[in-house]
Amino acid sequence: MASTANAFSPSLSYNLNTKTKSSTLKPSSPSFFQTRSNVSVRGLCSVELNRGRVAVSRSSRIGLRICASTAELMEAKAPTIVDVDLGNRSYPIYIGSGLLDQPELLQRHVHGKRVLVVTNNTVGAIYLDKVVGALTRGNPNVSVESVILPDGEKYKDMDTLMKVFDKAIESRLDRRCTFVALGGGVIGDMCGYAAASFLRGVNFIQIPTTVMAQVDSSVGGKTGINHRLGKNLIGAFYQPQCVLIDTNTLNTLPDRELASGLAEVIKYGLIRDAEFFEWQEKNMERLMARDPNALAYAIKRSCENKAEVVSLDEKESGLRATLNLGHTFGHAIETGFGYGQWLHGEAVAAGMVMAVDMSYRLGWIDSSIVKRVHSILERAKLPTAPPETMTVEMFKSVMAVDKKVADGLLRLILLKGPLGNCVFTGDYDRKGLDDTLRAFCKS
Amino acid sequence: MASTANAFSPSLSYNLNTKTKSSTLKPSSPSFFQTRSNVSVRGLCSVELNRGRVAVSRSSRIGLRICASTAELMEAKAPTIVDVDLGNRSYPIYIGSGLLDQPELLQRHVHGKRVLVVTNNTVGAIYLDKVVGALTRGNPNVSVESVILPDGEKYKDMDTLMKVFDKAIESRLDRRCTFVALGGGVIGDMCGYAAASFLRGVNFIQIPTTVMAQVDSSVGGKTGINHRLGKNLIGAFYQPQCVLIDTNTLNTLPDRELASGLAEVIKYGLIRDAEFFEWQEKNMERLMARDPNALAYAIKRSCENKAEVVSLDEKESGLRATLNLGHTFGHAIETGFGYGQWLHGEAVAAGMVMAVDMSYRLGWIDSSIVKRVHSILERAKLPTAPPETMTVEMFKSVMAVDKKVADGLLRLILLKGPLGNCVFTGDYDRKGLDDTLRAFCKS
Repeated sequence: MASTANAFSPSLSYNLNTKTKSSTLKPSSPSFFQTRSNVSVRGLCSVELNRGRVAVSRSSRIGLRICASTAELMEAKAPTIVDVDLGNRSYPIYIGSGLLDQPELLQRHVHGKRVLVVTNNTVGAIYLDKVVGALTRGNPNVSVESVILPDGEKYKDMDTLMKVFDKAIESRLDRRCTFVALGGGVIGDMCGYAAASFLRGVNFIQIPTTVMAQVDSSVGGKTGINHRLGKNLIGAFYQPQCVLIDTNTLNTLPDRELASGLAEVIKYGLIRDAEFFEWQEKNMERLMARDPNALAYAIKRSCENKAEVVSLDEKESGLRATLNLGHTFGHAIETGFGYGQWLHGEAVAAGMVMAVDMSYRLGWIDSSIVKRVHSILERAKLPTAPPETMTVEMFKSVMAVDKKVADGLLRLILLKGPLGNCVFTGDYDRKGLDDTLRAFCKS
Repeated sequence: MASTANAFSPSLSYNLNTKTKSSTLKPSSPSFFQTRSNVSVRGLCSVELNRGRVAVSRSSRIGLRICASTAELMEAKAPTIVDVDLGNRSYPIYIGSGLLDQPELLQRHVHGKRVLVVTNNTVGAIYLDKVVGALTRGNPNVSVESVILPDGEKYKDMDTLMKVFDKAIESRLDRRCTFVALGGGVIGDMCGYAAASFLRGVNFIQIPTTVMAQVDSSVGGKTGINHRLGKNLIGAFYQPQCVLIDTNTLNTLPDRELASGLAEVIKYGLIRDAEFFEWQEKNMERLMARDPNALAYAIKRSCENKAEVVSLDEKESGLRATLNLGHTFGHAIETGFGYGQWLHGEAVAAGMVMAVDMSYRLGWIDSSIVKRVHSILERAKLPTAPPETMTVEMFKSVMAVDKKVADGLLRLILLKGPLGNCVFTGDYDRKGLDDTLRAFCKS
């Protein structure tokens, strides 16, 4: 049932097979991080750790760019590395605890001598010094500037973006500088778009500090800002040099933010990875309790799913749109209800429930999936319905400017078939959509 | 002496050979447009017109995308077509008189059913209706919106750009829409950047209506806006679907704008095409008198030069920077003197004189080139010195944020060797720069 992406196909189906791009071995259990002794670094070399003996075998595909410091990395704690395979714009996602204490990881991706760290007042207060240290330790030629933006989705706008440009220009940064995004999805999206636009494009690095950003927004190169009439309407596809996920940064994440990120984790299971969904059903309490191994596994598996989809369809001509399950309804909630009232993942959770409801009304899935989605979201303490103030008209108004509208037709991601299968389609009975909206809105 | 582009080479030299990317026959005289009967369309097919007989021979390289309507185009007036060869982002530049009366030319590059024309109050008043007609004639499924911006470089800013986004979003345009830039360089740069950013990228078409835009800014995908501290500091590399140059639009161009555009024409001769420079020396009065054939030839030859450079170095890692001869000094004039006081080409003309002066001080060119540059600029009624209010400090302050600064080193385009040769280098005696700045500034 697998199908290639095609912008002109009225309906695309995707199956649940996860063909992992990452070169890491598929873990048989979530304790992978603790027990594995065989890792592979960017597909370039595989390293066996066996009683202190390090054997490096390299593939001839690219070279030994990463392997040079493998032994050093191993002495700290080797990151898991998931590749995003985009030809000459490919990059690694490093995942692990304490990665900000491994300056070499970050420094190998810095171009030029000048760095601008973009962060917000919340995250900056905790991690800015650490990141500056990681950028400059043993590297005295690099100078680091920073710009600290106000925290929150409501500041993801052009006025705030201009503060990044102001700082970059006033600091006389040139084309060989590197922007570093330190924060959640809002910071990553804004810093990425600023990097895409400053001098028509400079290097940038993502250091996501929320589950949401680690499993979704920092990977794949979607950057941008909101417009008062809709989310992410202005932006660019622009890939980072690397994504560095230090899972220790989750220790300071508020509970509500943690849950918000899990909405995207759940999404990957629903759209393409039933096995991962089943693992979540068994382990949701561990995730909510911040079990480091469970979180690390969920992040890795999510990044693998995202990396594979992005590699196949960078510019969202088809397949990539499936990552937006629940997002069309969710964006309407965020826009209609006011940015920042609900977190992105909370809106997506309610949006997924609506998309699942509509899929069921269309006869495309059976009721067991509806129940399982409700159940797992409730266990993640996520909403399963939109805010009571949302009306049918508010949904319709915002959904009309969704980026997935093509020549006036709203295409949606809906589940179809067994768990782990979805379609991206404009070919659905409009009554199904109307019925869903009416079922979830009082007026 | 030819050299490949290399971002890390301290000094790059480029020779004067013009290896034309265009598939048009090299004209032996500027009356080419009138007399030729053998044209080739995008390298795909060659068409011989011989007493009404049309014979089409096609190459097997790509297909017959353009040729389908060749006979129809011939009945009107076939455009000259210069290719910009950028792999799957390649596009044609159509050059000819009356091309806006050939709707098919434009319509084949419109994607989707919705078009947004971005223009200014000056150009829009004259050509908007004509362009809307060309977009919709025989094509009732297409609807056209327009946004009319204030005219002038001083409006090339974020506030004005937001008006384009506002219009696009309020009109509920989707990803399958097409933006059309109708105007000079400011409109082309802003519309292009808006197209690059709206929904992370939609199609766009350039319809440049000034010599400046026709020979330079509409070709090659540089888009962007100014920041109060410098020109074009925020933008994107984003290629159009096509560039349509109707030379009839020059009939309404003010004299000063005409001369401004000729500064860029002269630039191509100086940096890489001595033969073209010599042709200009013979034909400057014809150009100033708007002889249609002379203008068409100058536009075509300029586009060929630009297309070749852009094809070799789209992202300006080396070679492409040579197109900025005089622009570093020129941008300082525009920024220091205030946007819009001098036209871009006027500032570039004075900047070229300064670059040539510095090249001579460094001993890199002989005095005959200095004299010839002065002479041709004077005949084009262009300035040969910066405004009297410019100071050494003003130049240095703006030049420090130039995009060609790399790790703090200002690289310049300077002439070196016989006419038609230049270098892009940071390897020059700083005294040469200081002496030039002092020679042209009172303080």
